[in-house]
Amino acid sequence: MALETTKKVGKKVRLCGWVNSRRDHGKLVFVDLRDRSGIIQLVISLLDFADSSTLRVKNPQPEGFSSAKSSLIRLHLEDVIEVVGLVKNRTPQTINPKIPTGKVEVQVEKIKILAKSAELPFDMGQPELKLELPTLLDFRPLTLRHPKISAIFKVQEVIIDSFRQTLKNLGFTEFQAPIIVPATAEGGAEVFSVNYFDFKTYLGQSPQLYKQIMLGVFERVFTVTHAFRAEPSVTTRHLTEYLSLDAEMAFVDSWQEIMDTVEDVVKEILQAVEKKCFQELVMYKTTVPLITVKIPRLKLREAQEIIYQRTKKDKRKEPDLQPADEEEICQWAKKEKGSDFVFITHYPVKKRPFYTYPDPDEPEYTLSFDLLGRGLEWVTGGQRINDYEKLVENIKKWGNDPANFELYLQAFKYGMPPEGGFAFGAERMTMKILELANIREASAFPRDLERVDIRLYEKKKQTDKKIAG
Amino acid sequence: MALETTKKVGKKVRLCGWVNSRRDHGKLVFVDLRDRSGIIQLVISLLDFADSSTLRVKNPQPEGFSSAKSSLIRLHLEDVIEVVGLVKNRTPQTINPKIPTGKVEVQVEKIKILAKSAELPFDMGQPELKLELPTLLDFRPLTLRHPKISAIFKVQEVIIDSFRQTLKNLGFTEFQAPIIVPATAEGGAEVFSVNYFDFKTYLGQSPQLYKQIMLGVFERVFTVTHAFRAEPSVTTRHLTEYLSLDAEMAFVDSWQEIMDTVEDVVKEILQAVEKKCFQELVMYKTTVPLITVKIPRLKLREAQEIIYQRTKKDKRKEPDLQPADEEEICQWAKKEKGSDFVFITHYPVKKRPFYTYPDPDEPEYTLSFDLLGRGLEWVTGGQRINDYEKLVENIKKWGNDPANFELYLQAFKYGMPPEGGFAFGAERMTMKILELANIREASAFPRDLERVDIRLYEKKKQTDKKIAG
Repeated sequence: MALETTKKVGKKVRLCGWVNSRRDHGKLVFVDLRDRSGIIQLVISLLDFADSSTLRVKNPQPEGFSSAKSSLIRLHLEDVIEVVGLVKNRTPQTINPKIPTGKVEVQVEKIKILAKSAELPFDMGQPELKLELPTLLDFRPLTLRHPKISAIFKVQEVIIDSFRQTLKNLGFTEFQAPIIVPATAEGGAEVFSVNYFDFKTYLGQSPQLYKQIMLGVFERVFTVTHAFRAEPSVTTRHLTEYLSLDAEMAFVDSWQEIMDTVEDVVKEILQAVEKKCFQELVMYKTTVPLITVKIPRLKLREAQEIIYQRTKKDKRKEPDLQPADEEEICQWAKKEKGSDFVFITHYPVKKRPFYTYPDPDEPEYTLSFDLLGRGLEWVTGGQRINDYEKLVENIKKWGNDPANFELYLQAFKYGMPPEGGFAFGAERMTMKILELANIREASAFPRDLERVDIRLYEKKKQTDKKIAG
Repeated sequence: MALETTKKVGKKVRLCGWVNSRRDHGKLVFVDLRDRSGIIQLVISLLDFADSSTLRVKNPQPEGFSSAKSSLIRLHLEDVIEVVGLVKNRTPQTINPKIPTGKVEVQVEKIKILAKSAELPFDMGQPELKLELPTLLDFRPLTLRHPKISAIFKVQEVIIDSFRQTLKNLGFTEFQAPIIVPATAEGGAEVFSVNYFDFKTYLGQSPQLYKQIMLGVFERVFTVTHAFRAEPSVTTRHLTEYLSLDAEMAFVDSWQEIMDTVEDVVKEILQAVEKKCFQELVMYKTTVPLITVKIPRLKLREAQEIIYQRTKKDKRKEPDLQPADEEEICQWAKKEKGSDFVFITHYPVKKRPFYTYPDPDEPEYTLSFDLLGRGLEWVTGGQRINDYEKLVENIKKWGNDPANFELYLQAFKYGMPPEGGFAFGAERMTMKILELANIREASAFPRDLERVDIRLYEKKKQTDKKIAG
């Protein structure tokens, strides 16, 4: 692989990858080969390739290397090649300190084209891919290959992995929540229905009910799953399909314990990203958010009071924080507490799902929390009601039919400990860690009101035209 | 936790868990407490509890322990309790060699009921849960708690974890495939549609197309995802929603390399299960399947010839193996090669998806394979066509519109290496490793033609009745 060449000066290597860029200097062609380990400079001397006047081989032999004599050299960007060559030290003047293989290059002796690429629709060889978001997504298979874009998904892999590993170390068991569900758990219209044989089923809005059922089995559980919201509006922070990192823990002595666990998990994730994604953070000219030993914890009403003192905007009776409020309170936390994070607790009962535990001291507020980081919600969680009768009562109060929650309620009918949990949105974490402008950049295949891989309205137009035609 | 008591003889411990069973012996009550680590015997002497004539506390104080004097003792199965007590060695006659904590017990000093359970609908205290499948699933939150049932999902967790770990060690990158897809990749009617705003979208039948796109980014990729098939029939081996463990690798020199990788992954998974799930394998009175250094590899036609020789049933012109054939050829492999596994290769082009690579030597057959184990398919895979033009041609030939594969085709338009991959069904592996009779037992929340948590037809009847009423 490209990266390993640094340890193989003077040796012959075989490399496979994509043509990332190409620079012609008279009889010398410089090609940056990209593979999964990074980029390496290849040097191809046209003098070595006698019949180089035939600049392009139309039908490369599928078997074996083309002999050097009969080969190419009209390589296109994104062509897939295999080369054999000698690793050499670069001259001091030509060292490239910006890439890990910058001190070496490979003098190509044999080359084989494994697959040709069509002409690229835009320049892929620059350190920055300067495209508008719709274009970035219209050409996703191509744009994902750009080192700065693929970096996002290396970071996301580390986030998810570290979430799993941290929870396993804390005694949590991983389980698999189903996607197709028989009823909508949290009410509201923002749900997608599935045509399931003769029946109507739904896409789960969260694995909440299943993680509570599994808590009855393993005490501490987590799942990494897809969750779905039929968001009727287009914002920079919502997807219709997102990745939920969900955990639930039993036998909590206090709901503060749940926040303590969130704190531990966030710290572990940030440390893992800092350690494993140094290169990626540099690319995005950022560092991981600042986290203090103890993240500040404010009740909603306290946060609103602070916002009022700072801005003179009176939101003190609002049942929730608006995006601007979330940014304001994060700025306060940064300035006053040196923290990029702040917990907001005690959201009103009516703004939270039916299973949220009310605060015994202030029953109109809940033992729930959001963790805000860099101006946006990262995590939501809280203590849950574990009493069967109370849950039945609340399901009705929230306008649902307990019959639709039969399986869920069963878990509570047969003994459920005091418990609580939390959920991270993987794309939001990725977005905020790398300071991306839009959550769609943090999803390899983002789905929204207008797009499922392709632009839906344009597809519909085409279909309508076909039908009309 | 329960398991830790073995190291704490003579010490006081605090334990939380469920009442797994209860045996009354005059003034002594023996309770098996179950927590996530296992089972521990509690001894409660009624003499310690003065007012034990009030056998049940109707309103246990939510805060603090009830004093020993004022407490219960009418504990129900599945009640959730917290106890403080002294760990003691059992007398030699009362040692229970069947459980890891069998040499000790806890003399209870204080007890608190954290949550009450309703009367159980069946006996949960026996080593075997003797229930018909529909009942097992109707009471899933309860039956999952039975140690022999939860064992299945401990094994499944190890399988999935080991799949991930093995591939990471081989240089694969984990990515997240989307669930909602714009078109049906593999054709056929066995697909669920999703009502997506004004549009019709689908549930992915497999992450195949996305893993190929991501292969263009990271060369070696895998994903653990949900896949969906609208199976119109009820069998013991199909679910409508299942967990697919999918991998794809670039720059394969030969398609045999893909089978070599499958072999490595299966070996690692079986070793992990053997090492980490000793207890669970004992419960199911089984051992992991036998795997030989090299799993036998047969072409479909060779397998059919062997079946013909053994049974005189002539399937030699069939395009596929039937379930009985799969069992027969596995029996052959076991008897002749000492292997519980066998690869079947070279399925006909028309029985495989459009992207399957035809064998250059026998173009009516493909470079594809299934891995059969203990009579059932565990893995399917093969080399893929990586040529853009050929893919477009095949999509048409398979009766689809290339416009529906726009994003996928783009990956090939811009240079894709020779590649292939494979997919494991997590529930099938779990089922066959533990020798379960029905795949539904290997899914915490199985979905099929008749059930999504609850029985669909009964729900419909109720709804219809409500509407009629």
